Amino acid sequence: MTTTTRESVTVLGLGEMGAALARAFLAGGHPVTGWNRGRARADALAAHGATVAETVREAVLASPLVVVSVQGDTAAREVLEQAGDALAGRAVLNLTDGTSAEARAIARWASERGAAYLHGQLMTIAPGVGHPDATVFYGGSREVHDRHHAALELLGGRGILVSADAGAPTLYGMAVHGTMWGALNGFLHAAALLSGEGIELTRFLEAADSSMSALLSLLPSIASEVDRREYALEFGGLRHHLPSVEDLVRESRAAGVDDDLPARTLDLVRRAVADGHGDDSYARLVEYFRKGS
Amino acid sequence: MTTTTRESVTVLGLGEMGAALARAFLAGGHPVTGWNRGRARADALAAHGATVAETVREAVLASPLVVVSVQGDTAAREVLEQAGDALAGRAVLNLTDGTSAEARAIARWASERGAAYLHGQLMTIAPGVGHPDATVFYGGSREVHDRHHAALELLGGRGILVSADAGAPTLYGMAVHGTMWGALNGFLHAAALLSGEGIELTRFLEAADSSMSALLSLLPSIASEVDRREYALEFGGLRHHLPSVEDLVRESRAAGVDDDLPARTLDLVRRAVADGHGDDSYARLVEYFRKGS
Repeated sequence: MTTTTRESVTVLGLGEMGAALARAFLAGGHPVTGWNRGRARADALAAHGATVAETVREAVLASPLVVVSVQGDTAAREVLEQAGDALAGRAVLNLTDGTSAEARAIARWASERGAAYLHGQLMTIAPGVGHPDATVFYGGSREVHDRHHAALELLGGRGILVSADAGAPTLYGMAVHGTMWGALNGFLHAAALLSGEGIELTRFLEAADSSMSALLSLLPSIASEVDRREYALEFGGLRHHLPSVEDLVRESRAAGVDDDLPARTLDLVRRAVADGHGDDSYARLVEYFRKGS
Repeated sequence: MTTTTRESVTVLGLGEMGAALARAFLAGGHPVTGWNRGRARADALAAHGATVAETVREAVLASPLVVVSVQGDTAAREVLEQAGDALAGRAVLNLTDGTSAEARAIARWASERGAAYLHGQLMTIAPGVGHPDATVFYGGSREVHDRHHAALELLGGRGILVSADAGAPTLYGMAVHGTMWGALNGFLHAAALLSGEGIELTRFLEAADSSMSALLSLLPSIASEVDRREYALEFGGLRHHLPSVEDLVRESRAAGVDDDLPARTLDLVRRAVADGHGDDSYARLVEYFRKGS
């Protein structure tokens, strides 16, 4: 066994997620300096071998890589402002949620203070941090990404630098989560129907396993259609969806299950068909989400 | 090579789907008698070797198995009524869309006329009929399902008798399609955001491939929670979704993308958290789709 000296890492914000990040760095052999607004959570991390800093400035001065994990963009900005000129020459990895505009703004702000900036979007909850399957989307400074690669790998096995744009990881995360919420809402709406008829959802899933898996296989062609803005299709266009969505709305009403969700899908599909897009792919609906549609 | 005499099959309704069904039976060596309201489509099928019947009654008398594939429940009922007492002693496989109540009502109606009834929900578009991966959910008479198994297998390699309830296949299909529409709506809403920022969706999908696949792995635990009506969770409860959904709404508004979809998700999650379910799984939302919620 060889012992190498690993770079120290500072973690600002030691909530559930920040503490998981700090523990991942510690487990990987990195000295960690932690700071948290409330002292109790910092002390809890000290028990795992971290150094606790009294101030943000002191924490930032301790490491070349400063990781920020707090609740929302406003909190991230407030914390970083406390670092003052200590940020100059350091790398900031911000894993705080927000919008893409907020990520870009904080990237500019950090850059003006002489810090190199990388934004990260963790696609896991705290217990998944460090898992080989955990995805992290990175955007911003490639230099930060490459120089601190060994530390970053400890956060998730699937780290991907998706863009030089610090706002991109947020958008990537939103696309995964938006698809997830949509799928789960659709599934749970149907679950209300099926369970109301005495059908167990676990039993349904067993029978429908390959049908559900097939749903994902639709996405590459949908993505390509969106990119090309060409939606014409030989089979299975929007007009074929129409009677099935109508049935789902009628079924919901008959069962006394909230029909808001399928009614909105029906409205979208009806509008597209009425606009002459009945033989287009479902991907055509992207145009109805766009500005001014 | 051996030649076996396969049972003849009657197909009522020779639209895009009905014609595909008839061709699948013909390809499997079954004599097929077809009937269609308009003669042109029947003649087109005759070119593939089918016998064309002049009346529904004549078509029904030609085969022990009568497959119905028309546009909607009302049309299915009208066609079967033309068969009169010829239905007695025959098996009816109805592949026509509708609600679960409509499927049950037509099953009762057929039963009163001495026919055995099986309802089927094809989970494919016409070009996929007969594919080994094509799923068909069946519900109703097990005897029909088993006796005509050889013919049914020609429609799709994944035929599954899910229930003795003729209404069940419809509900199974709605659950798959509802999940699909939800996922696609969420994906296309996000696609409007990403493409608006110049991000190619195909590129996004490549980077997000494992994150998207992971979405499906959420469903078994969600299904089990719905079945047990127990939603408590140690990590990743609804309160953790809240700020991310808020970000998606804000991002949509800032980009001028329709925020209706994430705003409805936000409303659901907020209500559940306000009701004290912040530490429950996302599956808790099924209760908000249910009657009187």
